[in-house]
Amino acid sequence: MFKTALAGTAETVTAHLEKVLSGYEGELGAAMRYACGGGKRLRAFLVLESARLHGVAEAPALDAAAAIEALHAYSLVHDDMPCMDDDDLRRGLPTVHVKWDEAMAVLTGDALQSLAFELVAGLDLPAERRLALMQGLARAGGGQGMVLGQVQDIAAESASVPLTLDQITRLQALKTGALFDWSATAGAVMAGADPAPLSTYASAFGLAFQIADDILDVEGDEAATGKRVGKDEAAGKATFVSLMGLEPARSEAGRLVSLACDALAPYGEAAENLRQAARFVISRQS
Amino acid sequence: MFKTALAGTAETVTAHLEKVLSGYEGELGAAMRYACGGGKRLRAFLVLESARLHGVAEAPALDAAAAIEALHAYSLVHDDMPCMDDDDLRRGLPTVHVKWDEAMAVLTGDALQSLAFELVAGLDLPAERRLALMQGLARAGGGQGMVLGQVQDIAAESASVPLTLDQITRLQALKTGALFDWSATAGAVMAGADPAPLSTYASAFGLAFQIADDILDVEGDEAATGKRVGKDEAAGKATFVSLMGLEPARSEAGRLVSLACDALAPYGEAAENLRQAARFVISRQS
Repeated sequence: MFKTALAGTAETVTAHLEKVLSGYEGELGAAMRYACGGGKRLRAFLVLESARLHGVAEAPALDAAAAIEALHAYSLVHDDMPCMDDDDLRRGLPTVHVKWDEAMAVLTGDALQSLAFELVAGLDLPAERRLALMQGLARAGGGQGMVLGQVQDIAAESASVPLTLDQITRLQALKTGALFDWSATAGAVMAGADPAPLSTYASAFGLAFQIADDILDVEGDEAATGKRVGKDEAAGKATFVSLMGLEPARSEAGRLVSLACDALAPYGEAAENLRQAARFVISRQS
Repeated sequence: MFKTALAGTAETVTAHLEKVLSGYEGELGAAMRYACGGGKRLRAFLVLESARLHGVAEAPALDAAAAIEALHAYSLVHDDMPCMDDDDLRRGLPTVHVKWDEAMAVLTGDALQSLAFELVAGLDLPAERRLALMQGLARAGGGQGMVLGQVQDIAAESASVPLTLDQITRLQALKTGALFDWSATAGAVMAGADPAPLSTYASAFGLAFQIADDILDVEGDEAATGKRVGKDEAAGKATFVSLMGLEPARSEAGRLVSLACDALAPYGEAAENLRQAARFVISRQS
């Protein structure tokens, strides 16, 4: 069962993150641990499955999984701030700037970004492979990846002309796709293998994930998702749902999931967990 | 002349940063370039002098210098935000959140942190040395270094009991000392040489620099410093000056500069630029 496998991963990764974060003192340490709590750990799951497919040892796989979750947590803490998405609820709990304050939210995010790079720099792997992962993470997470996607997303909200489907697809590829790609290909990079099939999988999966997110914002339940819903529509924001309509968006997500699963053919049955992960995202309620 | 040497470094590093940042598109790219403009480039100067002392090639030295300035710029952009130091002026120009907005300040800082790591990961050096620099940078800049110092600094402002001299010395070592250390030792690490003398130099220099900063906040001129002065006293903040008095602080800074200069004895005359840099900080007007 995929949900059991994902829950198992979440538990392992959360425990590992807590261990890693135990060396961080004071309120900053507390806020970093709080920000890294909970979550589906989908990116960590991709890292660990991708590592398993390539026979990578558990220690570096787990550190890389913790790194991507720390990076993801940093982006959420900053995104939730009043000057950005202004969310007061995340994973069913008050966001960092609500529980502490905005200064702590800025600094907690900053420290978690540093931590992500520190973890990857310290992986128990040949130096060249660590560096390939570092450069990939900096590119995917930085001003030519995720952060650029964020800037474009914010700009789109105040633009007089809504984004087209092409623009929103490119924006999503930057904002969430690049880190999905890093996660799913991490195992291949760690093993020095060809990352191409996993990269194709990740692109299709990432896009399906974002479409599903847009659908959840329309159809979702606040109690189940643990975050505010209906925000996109209230903000008059162009989404896959507003541009395609609900049913066509659902069917496009389905098509992308098939495409993602097909890309894993070279791995045969061994990649079944990754296929289930892709199918899961379009059926999830949270 | 040290001031001429520093100005030359500033020009070279600024040109290199502009080249590095030319690949960043849109408003984010513009804000990143703006945030990286100006500045004394003291950290870059330390990197380049330290590299020169160890015969490191120019290309990796310049990239490492750009990396530390990008990291420094990120910390300034975030520090200047209303929820932190709330500064509207930096290097004589409106701060990023004033010229753009707070969301752009958060994201510009985030992208500059990523860039710093990307530059170090890509240095034209043996992989093991790049990784040593990466780990050092993540430690010095993260939640056990600079960011922790920031958190402690903010906490001190609202604490009922002012910090002691020991506490403020430790805070400073975290907040600015760790990155001074990284900068001054970078050349030794790049060359695989012993970083100990440069590390001693950097500790004393960093502390003298902070004391000089506190003196400038009391005595400085807004037009010359390009930033608001008198903020520490207005905030009722404990500083080296408030704890020691103005003249004892000045004499302690002098003692530390001598100590910094003495630590460079193994390098002989070749380290004269670094000695002048240390002497400069306690005489500067900005």
